[in-house]
Amino acid sequence: MSLVIIGTVAFDAIETPFGKRDKIVGGAATFASLSASFLYDDIKVVSIIGEDFGDDNLKILTDKGIDVDGIEIIKGGKSFFWSGKYHNDMNSRDTLITELNVLENFDPKLPASYQDCEYLLLGNLTPQVQIATLGQLQNKPKLVVLDTMNFWMDVALEDLKEVLQRVNVLTINDAEARQLSGEYSLVKAAQKILTMGPQYLIIKKGEHGALLFGENQIFSAPALPLADVFDPTGAGDAFAGGFIGYLAKVNSVNFTNMKNAVIFGSALASFCVEEFGSEKLQTLSQEMIRERIQQFIALTKFEISE
Amino acid sequence: MSLVIIGTVAFDAIETPFGKRDKIVGGAATFASLSASFLYDDIKVVSIIGEDFGDDNLKILTDKGIDVDGIEIIKGGKSFFWSGKYHNDMNSRDTLITELNVLENFDPKLPASYQDCEYLLLGNLTPQVQIATLGQLQNKPKLVVLDTMNFWMDVALEDLKEVLQRVNVLTINDAEARQLSGEYSLVKAAQKILTMGPQYLIIKKGEHGALLFGENQIFSAPALPLADVFDPTGAGDAFAGGFIGYLAKVNSVNFTNMKNAVIFGSALASFCVEEFGSEKLQTLSQEMIRERIQQFIALTKFEISE
Repeated sequence: MSLVIIGTVAFDAIETPFGKRDKIVGGAATFASLSASFLYDDIKVVSIIGEDFGDDNLKILTDKGIDVDGIEIIKGGKSFFWSGKYHNDMNSRDTLITELNVLENFDPKLPASYQDCEYLLLGNLTPQVQIATLGQLQNKPKLVVLDTMNFWMDVALEDLKEVLQRVNVLTINDAEARQLSGEYSLVKAAQKILTMGPQYLIIKKGEHGALLFGENQIFSAPALPLADVFDPTGAGDAFAGGFIGYLAKVNSVNFTNMKNAVIFGSALASFCVEEFGSEKLQTLSQEMIRERIQQFIALTKFEISE
Repeated sequence: MSLVIIGTVAFDAIETPFGKRDKIVGGAATFASLSASFLYDDIKVVSIIGEDFGDDNLKILTDKGIDVDGIEIIKGGKSFFWSGKYHNDMNSRDTLITELNVLENFDPKLPASYQDCEYLLLGNLTPQVQIATLGQLQNKPKLVVLDTMNFWMDVALEDLKEVLQRVNVLTINDAEARQLSGEYSLVKAAQKILTMGPQYLIIKKGEHGALLFGENQIFSAPALPLADVFDPTGAGDAFAGGFIGYLAKVNSVNFTNMKNAVIFGSALASFCVEEFGSEKLQTLSQEMIRERIQQFIALTKFEISE
């Protein structure tokens, strides 16, 4: 049984109030698979890169035992490149450059060895590629998690709705939940979105935590209050990776486990933003994760007896 | 031993996307004392009203056993009047009318019977009136909670800093915490504000819940996700009342009890916004509060065993 993650593997150039990096390894599948690798050990990535990516950079993934057989390398091609600059409040950013490069003709091909997929994360990508991935799996996975963004709601809403019909969990942020549902209240937004296909919805609220909706229940997870958010890039992907990584580990899908999965996702995301790009995720230890989970418990625990 | 609450008792005119009310009873002390009355039964209010307020309206407080001996009634005077209109997102509002009326010359006079005060809530008012109230107490209360707002930071910052030196807990919203500290990060803002006097700081984040800082710990409380926020007026005051009401009830101040107090404050605030003004707070039952506390527990509880 494996956890398959599809998404971009790319180069990023990032500027934040804390400094800048001209060319670091990024992409949704990078953040998500690194994050999941601390929780589960049979992770397989589907993506596309150019020859410029290089073995040294792929080693960032393979060092964590991540299977990269599904990452197509285009000879002479250039990897997807994104460049962005964050404002002082770190909640808004300007995209400076988006060079699709090899991503423009991405036609995902799942190696035969990926057919043991039971947990599937459809990282943020064009909905058509997400549908194509689903179409290549001979057996329906136990759990399909979909991450997407407002851009696809703007330019490919009908395709996105088709993907929604085929997934179990959707993760989006609060503005996207409002856009997708046309409802301002997040409770009403969730009610509408849960009629579009997924059985569970996670609304990510950045520094305000996340809400999990499903099985007629709501769970509210905090974000860890941090003195400095160094670089928010990839936090949502790290969240999704930690979330599905935990569920693959316990291999049982219900609201109780989903709640824990949201906490693990939040913990991994909290590490992600403490350094540039995926730098912190590359150096995490199990002990650091255990300690952070304890911080989340301390942060939220109260006991009212009457 | 009593819980003394000082603040406005007033008339409000409110318009929200759900409807309007031309003249309903409002004011910080009204919301806070009603809220606290469900948790503690020796509550005394200090305020000022005009002859127009009327016994029927005072009965809203006395019906809950609230002592109104400290509410000065000015013959021929008009009560404080505030009128506001909320926008569609309910997170922003325009103040249409502010008529100070009797509040303009408010010189609080504590009846002798109020000297048994051990818990004191300084509701949102000019810092000078808050200082004058503290000056009239012969014995230092066990706990002083201060509520204030950005307006006083703009026009009376030095007075506000003087009050801060003399209180144990400050409750403000996230924008106000940033303004008072000059720090964007709420963690850094809290660190700075906790050097200004109070031992505890509560940062209210509206629909995103509240953060409690103190004793080198942080507690993150959720807000109850609501399908509709009917009228946010008074939610912060209801929070403060529920918070200090719980602490007066358990009569023991430490971080563990503070956490529970934040949950009770959040629960009372969640009721407050479900109807216009203080209408919902006037009709609550103990059973409804118990159920809501259970909802808060279900909303946040998770168990990670390793």
